[in-house]
Amino acid sequence: MIQEHVLSILVENKPGVLSRVTGLISRRGFNINSLAVAPTEDSTMSRLTATVECDELAYEQLIKQLHKLISVYKISDLTNGEVIARELILVRVGAAPERRSEVIEIANVFRAKIVDVGKNSITIEATGDHEKLSGMVNLLRAYGIREIIRTGRIAMQRSSSDK
Amino acid sequence: MIQEHVLSILVENKPGVLSRVTGLISRRGFNINSLAVAPTEDSTMSRLTATVECDELAYEQLIKQLHKLISVYKISDLTNGEVIARELILVRVGAAPERRSEVIEIANVFRAKIVDVGKNSITIEATGDHEKLSGMVNLLRAYGIREIIRTGRIAMQRSSSDK
Repeated sequence: MIQEHVLSILVENKPGVLSRVTGLISRRGFNINSLAVAPTEDSTMSRLTATVECDELAYEQLIKQLHKLISVYKISDLTNGEVIARELILVRVGAAPERRSEVIEIANVFRAKIVDVGKNSITIEATGDHEKLSGMVNLLRAYGIREIIRTGRIAMQRSSSDK
Repeated sequence: MIQEHVLSILVENKPGVLSRVTGLISRRGFNINSLAVAPTEDSTMSRLTATVECDELAYEQLIKQLHKLISVYKISDLTNGEVIARELILVRVGAAPERRSEVIEIANVFRAKIVDVGKNSITIEATGDHEKLSGMVNLLRAYGIREIIRTGRIAMQRSSSDK
């Protein structure tokens, strides 16, 4: 069964590591749907969050191979369970002055921020899980989407087990 | 002069493209500080936003090489000029019940959201430019940072020239 997996991978922050990890995933024929990479608090390390679609057996193999890479320190699967998953989106929609208020209303419903207004466009910044953001984009489509930029997803375990 | 460049690259959304792009950058010895990859409105395409540190001459060479990749459709430099740049961060800080209100106050100042509360921790979601988020993290450090996850930066031209 093909499932989307969310992988959080702690790696060494140096040239070549990122392409070794993405190369390993793609050589197995899996596409990386989204990817977010940034340094951690310890700047010698980076965290990769990747969403990958694959079946269970192939997935187990992939994890094994990833563990073999020298620069990979830790791999966590944040697909299921109590997880906070978020992504960020910037959407520019067409909006003549007389329709601006409609677009702003949609932004408000999704607790999004207006970050830029042009003569005939509005740019909205929103965060949330994938479904919420897709819902907002679906509504905005009626106004004409000029540009849309998403970060990859990031995810963290909930702290319910926190002591 | 070494400068941080923000590159927005439109590529074909298929296995192997991401690792070819990141491989090309790292083979030239440049580290990718942050990277955000996600599908665009046209799901056959993905947008990569990468921040890379390099000097001017090396940068020109890099852009030339990237243009030669078959799956690369468009490259925009969003380093300077009128640009909206944002990233998303999830930060879990230690906070015993009696210090929670201090952490929540800092979150409010930065217009961040509380997304999770544990017995002795608070998890904050914030968006902004790199400097704003670094400022918030600096203040939160006093409480003990348990975990921090950042998306890479995404960026978009301002619409001042919008007609």
